[in-house]
Amino acid sequence: MFLPDWLKHYEKGQLNGDLIAGIIVAVVLVPQAMAYGLLAGLPPEVALYSSVLPLILYAAFGSSRTLAVGPVGLMSLMTGATLIELGINDLPGMISAAHTLALLVGTILLLMRLARLGVVINFLSHPVISGFISASAIIIALSQMKHIFGLNISLGLPAYETLAQLLIQLPQSDLAASVIGISSLVLLWAFKAPLVSFLSKTSISEGVAQLISKSGPLVAVAISTSIVYFLNLDTQHQVSIIGKIPPGLPEIILPSLDKALILKLLPSAFLIALIGYLESVSIAKSMASQKRQKIDSNKELIGLGTANIASAISGGYPVAGGFGRSMVNFTAGANSPLASIISAGLVGLTLLVLTPLFFFLPKATLAAIIVFAVLPLIDTHSFKRALAYDKADAFSLLGTFFTVLIIDVESGIIAGVIMSVCLYLYRSSQPHIAIVGQVGNSEHYRNIDRHNVKTDDKIIAIRIDENLYFANTNFLEDTIMQIVADNSAVNHIVLICSSVSVIDTSGLESLEDILFRLRKVGVKLHLAEVKGPVMDRLKGTEFLNNLSKNSIFLSTHQAMQALKSSQQPLS
Amino acid sequence: MFLPDWLKHYEKGQLNGDLIAGIIVAVVLVPQAMAYGLLAGLPPEVALYSSVLPLILYAAFGSSRTLAVGPVGLMSLMTGATLIELGINDLPGMISAAHTLALLVGTILLLMRLARLGVVINFLSHPVISGFISASAIIIALSQMKHIFGLNISLGLPAYETLAQLLIQLPQSDLAASVIGISSLVLLWAFKAPLVSFLSKTSISEGVAQLISKSGPLVAVAISTSIVYFLNLDTQHQVSIIGKIPPGLPEIILPSLDKALILKLLPSAFLIALIGYLESVSIAKSMASQKRQKIDSNKELIGLGTANIASAISGGYPVAGGFGRSMVNFTAGANSPLASIISAGLVGLTLLVLTPLFFFLPKATLAAIIVFAVLPLIDTHSFKRALAYDKADAFSLLGTFFTVLIIDVESGIIAGVIMSVCLYLYRSSQPHIAIVGQVGNSEHYRNIDRHNVKTDDKIIAIRIDENLYFANTNFLEDTIMQIVADNSAVNHIVLICSSVSVIDTSGLESLEDILFRLRKVGVKLHLAEVKGPVMDRLKGTEFLNNLSKNSIFLSTHQAMQALKSSQQPLS
Repeated sequence: MFLPDWLKHYEKGQLNGDLIAGIIVAVVLVPQAMAYGLLAGLPPEVALYSSVLPLILYAAFGSSRTLAVGPVGLMSLMTGATLIELGINDLPGMISAAHTLALLVGTILLLMRLARLGVVINFLSHPVISGFISASAIIIALSQMKHIFGLNISLGLPAYETLAQLLIQLPQSDLAASVIGISSLVLLWAFKAPLVSFLSKTSISEGVAQLISKSGPLVAVAISTSIVYFLNLDTQHQVSIIGKIPPGLPEIILPSLDKALILKLLPSAFLIALIGYLESVSIAKSMASQKRQKIDSNKELIGLGTANIASAISGGYPVAGGFGRSMVNFTAGANSPLASIISAGLVGLTLLVLTPLFFFLPKATLAAIIVFAVLPLIDTHSFKRALAYDKADAFSLLGTFFTVLIIDVESGIIAGVIMSVCLYLYRSSQPHIAIVGQVGNSEHYRNIDRHNVKTDDKIIAIRIDENLYFANTNFLEDTIMQIVADNSAVNHIVLICSSVSVIDTSGLESLEDILFRLRKVGVKLHLAEVKGPVMDRLKGTEFLNNLSKNSIFLSTHQAMQALKSSQQPLS
Repeated sequence: MFLPDWLKHYEKGQLNGDLIAGIIVAVVLVPQAMAYGLLAGLPPEVALYSSVLPLILYAAFGSSRTLAVGPVGLMSLMTGATLIELGINDLPGMISAAHTLALLVGTILLLMRLARLGVVINFLSHPVISGFISASAIIIALSQMKHIFGLNISLGLPAYETLAQLLIQLPQSDLAASVIGISSLVLLWAFKAPLVSFLSKTSISEGVAQLISKSGPLVAVAISTSIVYFLNLDTQHQVSIIGKIPPGLPEIILPSLDKALILKLLPSAFLIALIGYLESVSIAKSMASQKRQKIDSNKELIGLGTANIASAISGGYPVAGGFGRSMVNFTAGANSPLASIISAGLVGLTLLVLTPLFFFLPKATLAAIIVFAVLPLIDTHSFKRALAYDKADAFSLLGTFFTVLIIDVESGIIAGVIMSVCLYLYRSSQPHIAIVGQVGNSEHYRNIDRHNVKTDDKIIAIRIDENLYFANTNFLEDTIMQIVADNSAVNHIVLICSSVSVIDTSGLESLEDILFRLRKVGVKLHLAEVKGPVMDRLKGTEFLNNLSKNSIFLSTHQAMQALKSSQQPLS
């Protein structure tokens, strides 16, 4: 029988932590899931359905012990944007397309595992991710303002238009909604810092204190729902409420496999899969490293892939590991994925018996919960660091950030990847190339521009600080020919390859070209400090055959000594 | 007064070479230009107009002394394909769009000079260029078969469809056209190898011998035109002929500046400009290096830019430096751009007085001239070399080759660039990382898998053979954590940075992460052999502040000695 690793070695002592963490996460998850459903433009039950079966499947196949899978902000935003972009406006159509999207995301993740394509996330640089997440958080927060102030702003506008609409309409804010929304924000804030510091001074046990401090969203939900119910705010003040959630556990359904729909969803599905995978793996890794556990990227693809397929066939939409809830799970002492299974069970119980309680839940409160969940994702620190350390990275961060805000999330990621790749290639197309000289009488050779070193008119040693590949072959050729043109006495060039780990075909042809051009002007080419793997590949090439014998030296010093002694009879 | 450099220092002795080369190039250029016009689907006079003013402008502004500018195969092919793709079918419309295209190409080249974007050609790797040129040569040769066999195959089909049509229609070949076409091919072949070896055995002077051997196309034109004229093949056998070329020099016109047309032409214009620039610079560099001259890429942009604008305003189409004619110019002894000015003058003279002679020139002969000009461009050698040296490069070569043949030229270039960039990033995302040990009692440290070296249980030195940047940060983290997991006794990790020339923001954050994760498991991180420019940037970062003091060593040996002595009291 198939049993996940963690279950085979489960110890009794782990149960307590898992139980407490499972309960606390469920308390956060139920209101958060409904809020994220709202963000995706989907009814709350779709998001609640996404919080049962996917958690159990991830527990069975994933590699993180504490990752809390389920509806998350980024995936909800991207799902909502995709549906709007495709012009799917009717609720049944949106729900059905959301199931299909989850199925595609899950299938793509499993195919990425099969094709060993998990490495594609390496193409997303940290600054691009940071710019992308900050801008997405702003979009998410902005999109919720209409609920908080009771306004009517269409979904799917670029962020700056949403902001403009918000500013124009603000004077028409609905008083009742605004009071509920803003009070919810204040309550949620109070549950964060002030309550935590108060509880730490009391004699309440840590587990209970955590449960209380994390129950902010649930308390906000309870209070605001009661107020709406008792004051009849929904009928007398048109406060927007959740309404009827159909009771009962999710049923197993087959998502629509309409070919035209699948083709339209595919590009977004790919990006959503990528972002979901990226988010989950980075959270999982950061938690695992604190407990000396290991995250297996391949297992993550399977865990997330099956979780999304589970979501698709149980009436849900795309899921991933969420940052906030995973942190709650981790700090609440979860020891194993059993915690997630307990959370899933509690969400199921909620679906079975508690849905009538949410009828009068005001959307303004859910919106406040979302705003509070995403605000910590706005990350100015990374920008400041990138600006101080590397302007090019700061540039791609800002580029991604503004592309997301001005156009949309998907364009932002694509623009970010293209920018960071082009900037990297541009940088390595003009590598640092130094002429080096001997330090005193030592065997060390250093940059003549940085150190006081001895040089030789006839023998010039050049160190190239980059791989030789297509992007920099022209630069290398031009630089070497310029050095030769500037030093008329030279008759030996030693190319120091200590930093060269790859020579591609363009680089090889360029070396041949340099050899040939130098020979035309009576200069001999030599190589020093060629690495083992590079040398292995050069063997048998025309370049190596054309190079004079004894022209490859282990060290720069050996090269200089040998060439100097070969010159003595002449000079 | 503005005078180009070469003219300021012109010496009498250079005149003889320039005169002979100028005449020989003109002899090649007149029939070749008309043939390339045919390839672009344009009347011969457009191509002849492109062979006057552009040559003079390039002579004034370009940096190569021997580059022969004018109509070339690739540019003609791409121009023809662009016009067909845009659905421009009427001859006046095609001619007018061709002028506008040349204007755009020229403007783009000048703007690239202003924006210092000449470096973009670095993104084209040698294998991609080779695959692109080979496939283009096949497309060009295939496109001419209909003229050689007197068939009717539409222009602008993908290469495999052209081939299929050719095979289907071959039984309906026109006998007269086929005889002329195949005889022309045989004659052109005879003028290459056999005649050259015969002439070298006679006492004819080298200049005259060269003139004779390069006049193959002109002789083919003369003979086939006479045959058509005397046998009335055009009227009695419907052999396709050139017909009337309006006599007279090109007139200065303003190309159409229709906004819709410009917007449609722009993407192709950008690629044509790029390819024309790339082709011209590589030919110019290869010739210059043989005479210790220097090519200034910036001047080339200006030279080619003004040449294209000159072509646009004198009734021509996009031009570039051609490989074949430049070689003819160079080997015929051209010393300066005066040779090109002489060629231009002779083409002008031809336009003034000789155009009636070309009336009966059969298209089959022109097609044979094109086939002969492009066949040497099919380059299997590069593929064999790439396959032997670097499978990834062979893959991008083949990918580009087949994309050009199956889709089109432009898709081929774009696919080639994407493939080569992705393959490079993929390769550097899994860099060579070696654990090193001490060679004997020396100060040298080498890969433990390749050499017999001494290691230490508690101190592991790891050399990373690549820059630390976004594509490989995950790999580095995983590898180091795996090494720590596999070596339970370790408490010091020395990261040898001798091959690290760039650490981008992602790399820096990754180093911090590694530092933090190692600290969690009681392992200290140290750096050795950090390069000057890298160290300069690390100064002041949080990473360097968090690193323990005295954790950066000049050499691996110093690091190992210091850490070993710090261990002694404990072990």
